[in-house]
Amino acid sequence: MKLDFSNLKTLFINCTLKDSSKNSHTEGLMTLSMNIMRAEKVSVEYIRLVDYTIPFGLQPDMTEDGAEKDDWPLIFKKINDADILVVGTPIWLGEKSSVATLLIERLYGMSAKTNDKGQYIYYGKTGGCIITGNEDGIKHVAMSTLYALQHLGYTIPPQADAGWIGEAGPGPSYLDEESGAKNNEFTNRNTTFMTYNLLHTASMLKDKGGFPAYGNSRKEWGDGTRWNFENPEYR
Amino acid sequence: MKLDFSNLKTLFINCTLKDSSKNSHTEGLMTLSMNIMRAEKVSVEYIRLVDYTIPFGLQPDMTEDGAEKDDWPLIFKKINDADILVVGTPIWLGEKSSVATLLIERLYGMSAKTNDKGQYIYYGKTGGCIITGNEDGIKHVAMSTLYALQHLGYTIPPQADAGWIGEAGPGPSYLDEESGAKNNEFTNRNTTFMTYNLLHTASMLKDKGGFPAYGNSRKEWGDGTRWNFENPEYR
Amino acid sequence: MKLDFSNLKTLFINCTLKDSSKNSHTEGLMTLSMNIMRAEKVSVEYIRLVDYTIPFGLQPDMTEDGAEKDDWPLIFKKINDADILVVGTPIWLGEKSSVATLLIERLYGMSAKTNDKGQYIYYGKTGGCIITGNEDGIKHVAMSTLYALQHLGYTIPPQADAGWIGEAGPGPSYLDEESGAKNNEFTNRNTTFMTYNLLHTASMLKDKGGFPAYGNSRKEWGDGTRWNFENPEYR
Amino acid sequence: MKLDFSNLKTLFINCTLKDSSKNSHTEGLMTLSMNIMRAEKVSVEYIRLVDYTIPFGLQPDMTEDGAEKDDWPLIFKKINDADILVVGTPIWLGEKSSVATLLIERLYGMSAKTNDKGQYIYYGKTGGCIITGNEDGIKHVAMSTLYALQHLGYTIPPQADAGWIGEAGPGPSYLDEESGAKNNEFTNRNTTFMTYNLLHTASMLKDKGGFPAYGNSRKEWGDGTRWNFENPEYR
Repeated sequence: MKLDFSNLKTLFINCTLKDSSKNSHTEGLMTLSMNIMRAEKVSVEYIRLVDYTIPFGLQPDMTEDGAEKDDWPLIFKKINDADILVVGTPIWLGEKSSVATLLIERLYGMSAKTNDKGQYIYYGKTGGCIITGNEDGIKHVAMSTLYALQHLGYTIPPQADAGWIGEAGPGPSYLDEESGAKNNEFTNRNTTFMTYNLLHTASMLKDKGGFPAYGNSRKEWGDGTRWNFENPEYR
Repeated sequence: MKLDFSNLKTLFINCTLKDSSKNSHTEGLMTLSMNIMRAEKVSVEYIRLVDYTIPFGLQPDMTEDGAEKDDWPLIFKKINDADILVVGTPIWLGEKSSVATLLIERLYGMSAKTNDKGQYIYYGKTGGCIITGNEDGIKHVAMSTLYALQHLGYTIPPQADAGWIGEAGPGPSYLDEESGAKNNEFTNRNTTFMTYNLLHTASMLKDKGGFPAYGNSRKEWGDGTRWNFENPEYR
Repeated sequence: MKLDFSNLKTLFINCTLKDSSKNSHTEGLMTLSMNIMRAEKVSVEYIRLVDYTIPFGLQPDMTEDGAEKDDWPLIFKKINDADILVVGTPIWLGEKSSVATLLIERLYGMSAKTNDKGQYIYYGKTGGCIITGNEDGIKHVAMSTLYALQHLGYTIPPQADAGWIGEAGPGPSYLDEESGAKNNEFTNRNTTFMTYNLLHTASMLKDKGGFPAYGNSRKEWGDGTRWNFENPEYR
Repeated sequence: MKLDFSNLKTLFINCTLKDSSKNSHTEGLMTLSMNIMRAEKVSVEYIRLVDYTIPFGLQPDMTEDGAEKDDWPLIFKKINDADILVVGTPIWLGEKSSVATLLIERLYGMSAKTNDKGQYIYYGKTGGCIITGNEDGIKHVAMSTLYALQHLGYTIPPQADAGWIGEAGPGPSYLDEESGAKNNEFTNRNTTFMTYNLLHTASMLKDKGGFPAYGNSRKEWGDGTRWNFENPEYR
């Protein structure tokens, strides 16, 4: 069977604190994943969130809440158009960046929306994350990021987290030559497996026309449908 | 399309600290999910891990490392035979139980194993979690539990975490009548959606003969296969 | 012994996503703690961080890194002048707010600074946190917040986290009358204990002239002092 | 001023999964801290928790709940006699060990106890942690461990977490010569600072006769004392 991923779209959002005028180590590692996807004919878009004006808040459009400008509706359109979302983030004090936290808050702010099957809006999409730091925290940051994505409706493939950190303590970062990070076999393997697992999962969901709707429609639950849920209390 | 989940097997492991001679609130909530699965003709097995002798350690069989007895090989067989694993756990001080932590360590201890496609042993399986406490911590416990499962090879469906907690502070637990927990609409909905999402995901993977292997075989990577991974460093 | 806390200064920073034109539930709970402090003659200052312009980034003053405006130097001065810092934050998807994450990144950005004993700049100060949400996550958010503060040099008193959440699922928030949150005995007790424990700790440190410096001076370590540290390796 | 720490007692509990017949990397790093304390004339006791029989459960003595044997009362006596508790733990899948989780559950199980001032039993004590792994997670594990200790009543000094991990991916562990871990300047400095900060904090509390009791007595709160807490609701 020849695998064809050319009908898939992936959005990579880099949540570095630095705008595009500066070097991003996280972008360095994200590039490996993007290159694989491009070689597999996937449509790839990449943005840095800080290049946009994204106010704090939980409204779908914060200009309706007093903000002067809000690029979120534009970003959300990209997210909604993509089959796969890969969140990239640096680690600061063991946590994902404030920009990544802001991204997740804004994603969450859309959660009243449903798709045409009545499911939460992110159902049918696939999510992963790429993390870099110079000392510690890939797994913790991945826990938080992947949790949020699945809670919002994304499907999470096996090993959907890839990252690089150095030995305990401050030190060179991913792109710094002396880190030797590009030769880290573990990071390269995880990045590769993550990338292909995102593609396989998105492909399965695409073939199914999204995530199957029986038993998980927010709208139908609201209308009283319970499928085979039965509360012992009610018997 | 009539959905048929009767070819699926699910293992529910309750990581309560209490053996089967005692009441488990977590079991109370797990039962809702098990009942849906049984009504959908899924084969369901349920165990409490503390009913077994599971030594601390990372070896596949700790009797080879000095333990007098180890029931883990028996538990692992059940896990390996099941398409779906649902980890149930209470919350203590905001964390999953020590028994759940032990379960994940023992799962991790098998990670040198691969399946017949050369993938990590848990590839092709689907995971979720059910959490109860009387005050706080569903999301944090779910982060840790679902992270571990996906990192080991499980696929995580949308909204694969369900749980119940009461208001801040000590108070009645899930099965205590005065908690009113069984009428918590949010918990019931999440439990229902989680259950169906586990079934849909497992069904898709079953139809595919497991998780597709291209680009994620541990064995092939070890043999030097890199698919479309290309390290800018090597160019 | 009559306790006198009148020589202490506390800064409360509310990391709500909403500026001062809007209601903040977190402010509601923070007020209980501020009232106790004022009754104890402590000097109290309260700010909402979003009322200020705080760019993303790790530089002490981001205008030197291209930002148009940066109020951080002003905020840092307040932090530096205070004996106690109380971070207030709402919970979104189980995590502290993006604004709280930003605050911690900016605090971290000052960590090259040392005090006149050569210790990290936050040594001698005392930290705590106040957290509100409508469903889940006080402990997780407190873990992250208190960890960061202690890692930066703050001393953390016993039970330095207080919070309120409702039962699992969406629902009324702290200030909503139907939440009954103000009568939550557990929240009131924790808020009271936290407040007094911050005062006792800050008072002890004030009496000592800051955190004692032997064995923890960044400057002396840099100069080669090792006190009684001896690495078995070097023997 | 000559500092004298000779009236202090420290208990180091190593939560490795391996009993004393085996090598523990975590013990390797804990030894550096113990050596400093011994050089400072502190009374030091060290145990590995897995050398004892500690059943799962939340009762102060699990033999009253059906367990055949429970060494916890013995361990608790050691904890109660010590001014300082240092929890050592390895990292597995980014989390503290199941043994460390068990320790915290058992500590929590004593939280109904109060001291002679009516405070929670751990008030007046000082806590820290030492963490080793070969790839990732010091900060996350420290968050969880230090949070639990402070929530139970321990005071947490500045920089009370020390640890060592290697670069991302599997690799040599702390004691393995090829790790070079003993020469990690950052780990050595953090271990030194943590050790002295524990001593200073414990010394201050010892001089005060424990943690000052005004405003934090569980017993007095239960009897209706509210100090300067005043609920706006009640006005």
